[in-house]
Amino acid sequence: PFKVPENKLLNLESFFSMKAIPQKLLVAGEGPVAAEVSQLLALIGKDVTLLKTAEKIFPALDDYMGNFISRKLESMKIKIIEGTAGYDTLNIDDYEGIVNCMPRKGIKPTGTLKPDSADSFYITDEHFMTSVRGVYAVGDVNGRSIYAHAASAQALAAVNHILGITESMETERVPLTVYTEPELAQIGKTEKQLAAEGIEYKVNEFPLSANGKALTEGQSEGILRILSEPKYGEVLGVQIIAHNATDLISEASAYMAVESTVWDVARTMHAHPTISEVFMEAGSDAAGTPVHKG
Amino acid sequence: PFKVPENKLLNLESFFSMKAIPQKLLVAGEGPVAAEVSQLLALIGKDVTLLKTAEKIFPALDDYMGNFISRKLESMKIKIIEGTAGYDTLNIDDYEGIVNCMPRKGIKPTGTLKPDSADSFYITDEHFMTSVRGVYAVGDVNGRSIYAHAASAQALAAVNHILGITESMETERVPLTVYTEPELAQIGKTEKQLAAEGIEYKVNEFPLSANGKALTEGQSEGILRILSEPKYGEVLGVQIIAHNATDLISEASAYMAVESTVWDVARTMHAHPTISEVFMEAGSDAAGTPVHKG
Repeated sequence: PFKVPENKLLNLESFFSMKAIPQKLLVAGEGPVAAEVSQLLALIGKDVTLLKTAEKIFPALDDYMGNFISRKLESMKIKIIEGTAGYDTLNIDDYEGIVNCMPRKGIKPTGTLKPDSADSFYITDEHFMTSVRGVYAVGDVNGRSIYAHAASAQALAAVNHILGITESMETERVPLTVYTEPELAQIGKTEKQLAAEGIEYKVNEFPLSANGKALTEGQSEGILRILSEPKYGEVLGVQIIAHNATDLISEASAYMAVESTVWDVARTMHAHPTISEVFMEAGSDAAGTPVHKG
Repeated sequence: PFKVPENKLLNLESFFSMKAIPQKLLVAGEGPVAAEVSQLLALIGKDVTLLKTAEKIFPALDDYMGNFISRKLESMKIKIIEGTAGYDTLNIDDYEGIVNCMPRKGIKPTGTLKPDSADSFYITDEHFMTSVRGVYAVGDVNGRSIYAHAASAQALAAVNHILGITESMETERVPLTVYTEPELAQIGKTEKQLAAEGIEYKVNEFPLSANGKALTEGQSEGILRILSEPKYGEVLGVQIIAHNATDLISEASAYMAVESTVWDVARTMHAHPTISEVFMEAGSDAAGTPVHKG
């Protein structure tokens, strides 16, 4: 959307092989990589400005998570500026280097087959088959997820479909992971998605600052949030901010893969002392019987 | 079982307030604490001998886990000697300090109520009620588990029973955690228990040395093992050796609390790169469709 002098442009690939990194940097992009790279550069003492190319730093995150990471980056003296409203105020001359963290488009193969596409992505059905019968498209090219694990799961589902296997694979409940400090992880629907779909939900939270293991490890920044359906208690989404959120989210994946309820979460015995106890705490709270919450 | 001069005896409580710790130490005991304390002392340069007061260092662990931790401690120059066969070879004069890591018995309240007991523990029914109607015993005193989280779960189950609530609590599937380096964690039945009960089972494993995140973190020592029922695939037990095994085990608790099968484990999408992917790998292997295992 704006011209950058070649000699100032830093692609992530070249970035890690550079002998020296300029001091004043503009990180342009969105998504996990934009947040991770901005924070990494700030941590090694660079003067970082993050130019958001989407309204939110990571549009797929719940607003709660998005607001947290924005505040976190700002607390580290990272300036966040809007790219979405136009680039009028942007002066490229102010920066010694521009880091490209723009979302990548799927790279489509060349050839005579031309499956239907929209917005530069192949259109696929629930088995990831394109408009060309027998031709499947998984991963970046179908525009459904930027994550490697989503691509792997889609590939398994596509292969199953080819082999006539009807066993279901998880391809919708994709855990989102951001390797910032603290890490962010999310699975299921966001508050905004639930509201837009008219699904009733409640939110139950438990902070890491009340978790013994997190305090012992000096890693008490963060929270676990469970979004659940109020009547039958099905877990609709889980959001985690924690030093090791990307590993903690797998427990949420396990609950959601078998459509567990908040009662299942509450009655699962969690070892003490572990950070995973926050699941039991928030689950008990959601079940109406909080244990260590007033 | 043997006499120790008072001035040489170190209780764990006094241990942490000592100004200096003697160099040549005998750790006498069993269970997680004996393993943790022996390793800690070796890590700070002490000459440690572990006197096992049970045949296994931690009798509740699967032999696979027990053998691992024995070898691990021995690789750190900790001498392991048997206490069970008699203390004939033991010369207390060889040691400057004796660290008491013997298992604790439950401390029973004094009073006029005398519930039935056996082996110094109160006998309790499935609701943790003693032989005295309306009197419940949870935690160390009933001899079922040494863990705080088991006591908490038993307490909730007892209170539910008092209140007439029939909702089930997990009180049998107790996660066992050992805070050594690497950590050990286990839930469900051991191979020996399954064999003794005549339950058919299979074991599927995946090593951390083939997990990208573990390699990235330089913490690739360890393995995940899933014990499952061959026909319907129910997960019967999970054993983990890993730097953060005590947090990883909660995913296993989640699967087992709702009686998930290895197919559920296999089809749950796990974020990449995370250590939790070892669940997907071992689960896929158990389901007969390994992804990254030959």
